[in-house]
Amino acid sequence: MLKQLNPTGVLDLLSQLEVDLLEQSSTSERYKLFRNCVLAVLNVGSHTDSSSEIYDKYENFDIRLLSRERGIKIELENPPESAFVDGEIITGIHEHIFSVIRDILFICQKYEKDLTEQKAITHMVFDMLRNAGALRVNSDPSMIVCWGGHSINEVEYKYTKQVGYELGLRGLNICTGCGPGAMKGPMKGATIGHAKQRITDNRYLGLTEPSIIAAEPPNPIVNELVILPDIEKRLEAFVRSAHGIIIFPGGAGTAEELLYLLGILLHPENEKQCLPVILTGPKQSENYFIELCKFVENTLGKKALDKFDVIIDDPERVGRTLKAKMADVREYRKSQGDAYYFNWTLKIDNDFQQPFAPTHANMASLDLHLDQPTQQLAANLRRAFSGIVAGNVKDEGLQAIKQYGRFVLSGEPALMADMDKLLAAFVEQGRMKLPGSKYIPCYEIKA
Amino acid sequence: MLKQLNPTGVLDLLSQLEVDLLEQSSTSERYKLFRNCVLAVLNVGSHTDSSSEIYDKYENFDIRLLSRERGIKIELENPPESAFVDGEIITGIHEHIFSVIRDILFICQKYEKDLTEQKAITHMVFDMLRNAGALRVNSDPSMIVCWGGHSINEVEYKYTKQVGYELGLRGLNICTGCGPGAMKGPMKGATIGHAKQRITDNRYLGLTEPSIIAAEPPNPIVNELVILPDIEKRLEAFVRSAHGIIIFPGGAGTAEELLYLLGILLHPENEKQCLPVILTGPKQSENYFIELCKFVENTLGKKALDKFDVIIDDPERVGRTLKAKMADVREYRKSQGDAYYFNWTLKIDNDFQQPFAPTHANMASLDLHLDQPTQQLAANLRRAFSGIVAGNVKDEGLQAIKQYGRFVLSGEPALMADMDKLLAAFVEQGRMKLPGSKYIPCYEIKA
Amino acid sequence: MLKQLNPTGVLDLLSQLEVDLLEQSSTSERYKLFRNCVLAVLNVGSHTDSSSEIYDKYENFDIRLLSRERGIKIELENPPESAFVDGEIITGIHEHIFSVIRDILFICQKYEKDLTEQKAITHMVFDMLRNAGALRVNSDPSMIVCWGGHSINEVEYKYTKQVGYELGLRGLNICTGCGPGAMKGPMKGATIGHAKQRITDNRYLGLTEPSIIAAEPPNPIVNELVILPDIEKRLEAFVRSAHGIIIFPGGAGTAEELLYLLGILLHPENEKQCLPVILTGPKQSENYFIELCKFVENTLGKKALDKFDVIIDDPERVGRTLKAKMADVREYRKSQGDAYYFNWTLKIDNDFQQPFAPTHANMASLDLHLDQPTQQLAANLRRAFSGIVAGNVKDEGLQAIKQYGRFVLSGEPALMADMDKLLAAFVEQGRMKLPGSKYIPCYEIKA
Amino acid sequence: MLKQLNPTGVLDLLSQLEVDLLEQSSTSERYKLFRNCVLAVLNVGSHTDSSSEIYDKYENFDIRLLSRERGIKIELENPPESAFVDGEIITGIHEHIFSVIRDILFICQKYEKDLTEQKAITHMVFDMLRNAGALRVNSDPSMIVCWGGHSINEVEYKYTKQVGYELGLRGLNICTGCGPGAMKGPMKGATIGHAKQRITDNRYLGLTEPSIIAAEPPNPIVNELVILPDIEKRLEAFVRSAHGIIIFPGGAGTAEELLYLLGILLHPENEKQCLPVILTGPKQSENYFIELCKFVENTLGKKALDKFDVIIDDPERVGRTLKAKMADVREYRKSQGDAYYFNWTLKIDNDFQQPFAPTHANMASLDLHLDQPTQQLAANLRRAFSGIVAGNVKDEGLQAIKQYGRFVLSGEPALMADMDKLLAAFVEQGRMKLPGSKYIPCYEIKA
Repeated sequence: MLKQLNPTGVLDLLSQLEVDLLEQSSTSERYKLFRNCVLAVLNVGSHTDSSSEIYDKYENFDIRLLSRERGIKIELENPPESAFVDGEIITGIHEHIFSVIRDILFICQKYEKDLTEQKAITHMVFDMLRNAGALRVNSDPSMIVCWGGHSINEVEYKYTKQVGYELGLRGLNICTGCGPGAMKGPMKGATIGHAKQRITDNRYLGLTEPSIIAAEPPNPIVNELVILPDIEKRLEAFVRSAHGIIIFPGGAGTAEELLYLLGILLHPENEKQCLPVILTGPKQSENYFIELCKFVENTLGKKALDKFDVIIDDPERVGRTLKAKMADVREYRKSQGDAYYFNWTLKIDNDFQQPFAPTHANMASLDLHLDQPTQQLAANLRRAFSGIVAGNVKDEGLQAIKQYGRFVLSGEPALMADMDKLLAAFVEQGRMKLPGSKYIPCYEIKA
Repeated sequence: MLKQLNPTGVLDLLSQLEVDLLEQSSTSERYKLFRNCVLAVLNVGSHTDSSSEIYDKYENFDIRLLSRERGIKIELENPPESAFVDGEIITGIHEHIFSVIRDILFICQKYEKDLTEQKAITHMVFDMLRNAGALRVNSDPSMIVCWGGHSINEVEYKYTKQVGYELGLRGLNICTGCGPGAMKGPMKGATIGHAKQRITDNRYLGLTEPSIIAAEPPNPIVNELVILPDIEKRLEAFVRSAHGIIIFPGGAGTAEELLYLLGILLHPENEKQCLPVILTGPKQSENYFIELCKFVENTLGKKALDKFDVIIDDPERVGRTLKAKMADVREYRKSQGDAYYFNWTLKIDNDFQQPFAPTHANMASLDLHLDQPTQQLAANLRRAFSGIVAGNVKDEGLQAIKQYGRFVLSGEPALMADMDKLLAAFVEQGRMKLPGSKYIPCYEIKA
Repeated sequence: MLKQLNPTGVLDLLSQLEVDLLEQSSTSERYKLFRNCVLAVLNVGSHTDSSSEIYDKYENFDIRLLSRERGIKIELENPPESAFVDGEIITGIHEHIFSVIRDILFICQKYEKDLTEQKAITHMVFDMLRNAGALRVNSDPSMIVCWGGHSINEVEYKYTKQVGYELGLRGLNICTGCGPGAMKGPMKGATIGHAKQRITDNRYLGLTEPSIIAAEPPNPIVNELVILPDIEKRLEAFVRSAHGIIIFPGGAGTAEELLYLLGILLHPENEKQCLPVILTGPKQSENYFIELCKFVENTLGKKALDKFDVIIDDPERVGRTLKAKMADVREYRKSQGDAYYFNWTLKIDNDFQQPFAPTHANMASLDLHLDQPTQQLAANLRRAFSGIVAGNVKDEGLQAIKQYGRFVLSGEPALMADMDKLLAAFVEQGRMKLPGSKYIPCYEIKA
Repeated sequence: MLKQLNPTGVLDLLSQLEVDLLEQSSTSERYKLFRNCVLAVLNVGSHTDSSSEIYDKYENFDIRLLSRERGIKIELENPPESAFVDGEIITGIHEHIFSVIRDILFICQKYEKDLTEQKAITHMVFDMLRNAGALRVNSDPSMIVCWGGHSINEVEYKYTKQVGYELGLRGLNICTGCGPGAMKGPMKGATIGHAKQRITDNRYLGLTEPSIIAAEPPNPIVNELVILPDIEKRLEAFVRSAHGIIIFPGGAGTAEELLYLLGILLHPENEKQCLPVILTGPKQSENYFIELCKFVENTLGKKALDKFDVIIDDPERVGRTLKAKMADVREYRKSQGDAYYFNWTLKIDNDFQQPFAPTHANMASLDLHLDQPTQQLAANLRRAFSGIVAGNVKDEGLQAIKQYGRFVLSGEPALMADMDKLLAAFVEQGRMKLPGSKYIPCYEIKA
């Protein structure tokens, strides 16, 4: 099956020189990246979160760019059918393909070399968001980042929709990591809320990365999609774009996000930062949050608990609280002379910026002891959970596990016990992988 | 509680002369109409479909128009709280209030006298839709009228959402009679479909009338609301705006709509009319449609069955079929030199245009025999069901029933038996009234 | 030659009932009015200001409305070629034709009967402007009415452009009576000023009337055209829309406008009205203003001079002054709770509203004595000049003069002497008629 | 005097890293370039075309970028007053400042190194136009490049306005080199034409370069401004953006443009290119074109005359011809699969792309003999005129002349005589410099 997509959008304004950069070639790493990202975007609605399964299933999928007088045509060979309605591609997915092209070209033309300096990395995150049109100069604070599991149960999913609805009714926008579950629900809910309020410049910002996009493809409601190069830059994009953060129930990825966030907010220079964080879920998820809080308290200490609120089973209160906080965020940014659209003053240590490669060696050598500075511990714990996410759903991780067996995590016994307990709960509650397959842990905990 | 709504929209362009027409006054019929319609619009989300109950509950509600330099301010005394989010009125509801003002002023300035002539009535329906901005000159056929019950079960409701989603994905627009159930579901579904297709000029057209607006208040998703003066003009507005019609399961109102439609489509002059009609519902509603078809066949004959298709449990097919038919509709209109936005060539007999007042006398004297021309029978059956709707949920009907007891319908025994059976099924399936109250029939059938 | 204009704009949303109202018919007064107005609009750029000459020249011009599926087509037989560029009608002119249809239909559907009551007349003016979309709710005061002659010299014309440019640079909008000369210059100048300021919602409002539209056809730059039924309603539309008024040199029409304005502003109830008026022209026109002021002083008294400023040869100062005054206008309207878009509180006596038919009898019986209340004198003087304008360029006036000879004006000798002097100056300066023909006075003054 | 401009537009989306690049510093070349370009843009309407005079006059002018929460503020010290209306900067000029910042930052972040390869230079021109938003994907051919002198007489100026008006009436857009005279007239005329046709997406594209921007500052009507790094890239931007080219009377710069254009069009690979070129002026300029044609014929041969048409004193014909040709351009591009918005297939030899530094040595060593390939001769003649433009108005040129005296041009006597004659005519007709100063030639011709 061969599908041609007509040129539309600014993205077809490509020169031949640029088209050549994405040329079909079995050996080019860049082409492979490009092809896989496009495939992921097309494969929305699939019922697996295993990247490799998807790549296997569509191994005869191909993409080519063709120069035409009105711009660049995209030719797809054997694309997933779910992306099409009566033979026509869904516009939202069409746009996502453009986002993929835009971001890959941007990186390969401007950022081929790895950056190490703190300021340069932050500038790159800014530059990518700007290039994607994801920074809005004349908007008041309104961007709520929603984190949470891609695999949640029906009650939790409905709850995320209700929260999204309440946010939408209050003119707030949604940013998630794309994907199903807690990343899709708030956007669907907000869509209805925005419709009732006649808000047409509503934003459903999706921030993803090449290694996870296949497992958690962007829902077509996402109307701004940015593909950051790695999880660290993606996390930085989240927190610098956010005017408020909601954390729904989730698994290892959600734990990674929470630890990243707390590690940063606990930095002395961020003491006065105004960034409201709310953990929320339906009544039946209350225990989940109790356990999570206990883990945070045991590892990062009591003061870490001050950095967020927990609201159980009250979507309206979540909406009302965040809406009210937007004025504080505005006031704070103003007092600092900081932009509303990008939180420049938030201090992010280089430790949280450096990419962590989830190899067996790196995982094994993580320093997981309580007797280190809180932030450093947070950074290391973040890396541990990040590795587990990779082992669960990312292609590189899956390959590594296949080849070398489980990751081994070791450290201080008390800490390891806590971690084991938390992870076991995630497994038991079905938060690690989408239902339909038995979860086989990619890690083992050694004290 | 006193709320002031700031002037916005073209509607605050009122002269003092016009404001005076809507002046608060306990004796003015026009003011009462105005107040009750606004109350209905504000009371969305209520859980009763009894107009009188609503009017009783909010008897201390009041509305006043105040001239201000930037336009007319609306002052509301004791409005239902559900219309507000954190003290601010929901924009969609705000717009609906404007629609109420617009349509009442339009009627009382231009159409005080009752019209009788066929051409004049049709022109009035056109004039009201035009004045409301509900006629779009440069649009291809896309308006799907969705009829069905306000009281349907969860499975049926979900199904109407899925159908709406498939319509939205195909760029089709939705028109319903406002209200909950089958009138809300398709709009919610289409909202998500439109969002995925990045359609921003989506239309959710609600056509209502003063006597039903309280029982079936427009959902705020409705982004174009027109209040026609009576059910006959409302039905004419439906069929002349429609490029396709879907009928979901419903009660007496839905039966009224189907009979009205068939009565018109069976007119010899409409033989070649291109107006696709689909009856559809989930698997579990299949019997409902079987019974309905039987009733149609028994009363209007086999040829009436040719005027529509029945599709069970296949939302995608409903969407695909209607989308495909739009080209035929376009072709037909073109061949007739008829507008896309208003079906001028559809023949509607004066019989179907004249308002039917659901009094006990009128109901009792309905000619319900099979030995009359098909269209005439359809017209009379339509009136019978119309009266039952009034007795179920409209204020005037409820009052009449309270005072004089049930409506009595009599006629040919075979016909009355069929009718009894159909109505009994509606009652049993809970389609007559919203759940929560026991339904007490407002009619009795005598052979 | 036959030209068909495709349906566009909201105006093609006509029902057959309405199309019939404008049907071609040699006997219908309404059709004649319609045809003549459309002809006038098409004939822009012509070099005569004699209506009858134009009607004679294009006696084989015809217009027909044809119903088509996408709306109403306009068919023109033998239209003036200047309205077309390479066979395509100029869009601005196309829009003007729609305005003609809109306003004639509006009047004949809603205002067939003559209105006499003060409030009703004002409401009609409001209703016509609103129906034309010429009232903008959310705009701050910015509408500068520019009056002045259609026949002015090159230096004066250039000056009006410079003033328009300075107004445009300051975001002010222009309203004139359409036509060439002082009615076109400010719009052309403002177009450049607005372009430099990137203002895209610029307004060039033209207010005209059927009897003058042929002599002074709207320039296509006019982007909002309203055809009021007579000069009195047109003058009321001017002063109620105006946030500021500029009077450039002109002839009898300009004198009529000035006297109308002063008659109103001198009303005791308008004492506190905030409506800046500036008389301005280039250095060489200084004497013109000196004479005009003398006439005003001699007739309406010294206090009339307080109602306006005279600025000679300083376009920037005119712009700066008016811009600065807009804040006062805003403040005043706010303090009165009056709209910005329509000056409701301005008191206009019925005397100034009643149409004055410029017949020989009416002209001869005008009371032109100084011993009457100032406003009444202003009203009578206004009528005298209005009659002269009719005799100069309006069809009815030209016919009357042809048949019965000159109008005779008589009254108090001193006043008549002043009037004679002023009119003689207008004649001498070529302000009565466009150059190219010798002006033969349509009046004679008797003491 | 200190003026602060509020952040607006996408350009205030700067990171601190970028702001630092433009930091005020007396030693930084980049800052000097930035400051001078902004000064030039602010100084529009000045009456000198001497860059150095302007820089001297405003030597205490300074610019600073200040980070603020809503973006970057611009602080101007002692800016030219003509850029302000009542203390507020003219929006068009404000936008031009943003264009300066955008283009300087783009070059210094992406194109620090000089490019030499043909493909890379063309890509850079494309990249700059794209980054400036000057490439419109979904537009049909409509961009008319207008070349001609900055110093022309009143009759010629009026003629350029009339031509612009005719282009505007036909929906064509204008691109010029900014500056007064023939570069401003067409835009002013088109503004009126576009207004009459209600065209709101009208384009007035100005292409300039740092070394000429002060002498020929962009008129605020220019609504898209791009500052290319040198005359060669600017000329390439002109011809690749153009769908048609008009050459009005002009001096050395216009000759440079014509020679550049002919040199390219005479390339064998461009034989079938469809790029209409019209030389036009009022009756009184007829001799100018006769002489110019003679020079072209004598140097580049008869076949060069086939590459353009000459139309004398007929603005409407110019408009009509170009409008008609747009269909051919469209057809040609389509047949080649080439973009409408950028003429990729036009062959431009590296000879025409390499920057020519107008030093005394380079000027003296130009090969000006007839016995060389036509294109090469065209390239060299282009350089000769380019040098003269630099010596007339560009800062570097003026400095060089001041220091080393006149440029000396030598070559084949017949050719040198022709050139002398042409240049003498330019001088005599006042085309070299703006009136007000006696022109002192910056060159001398030696046989």
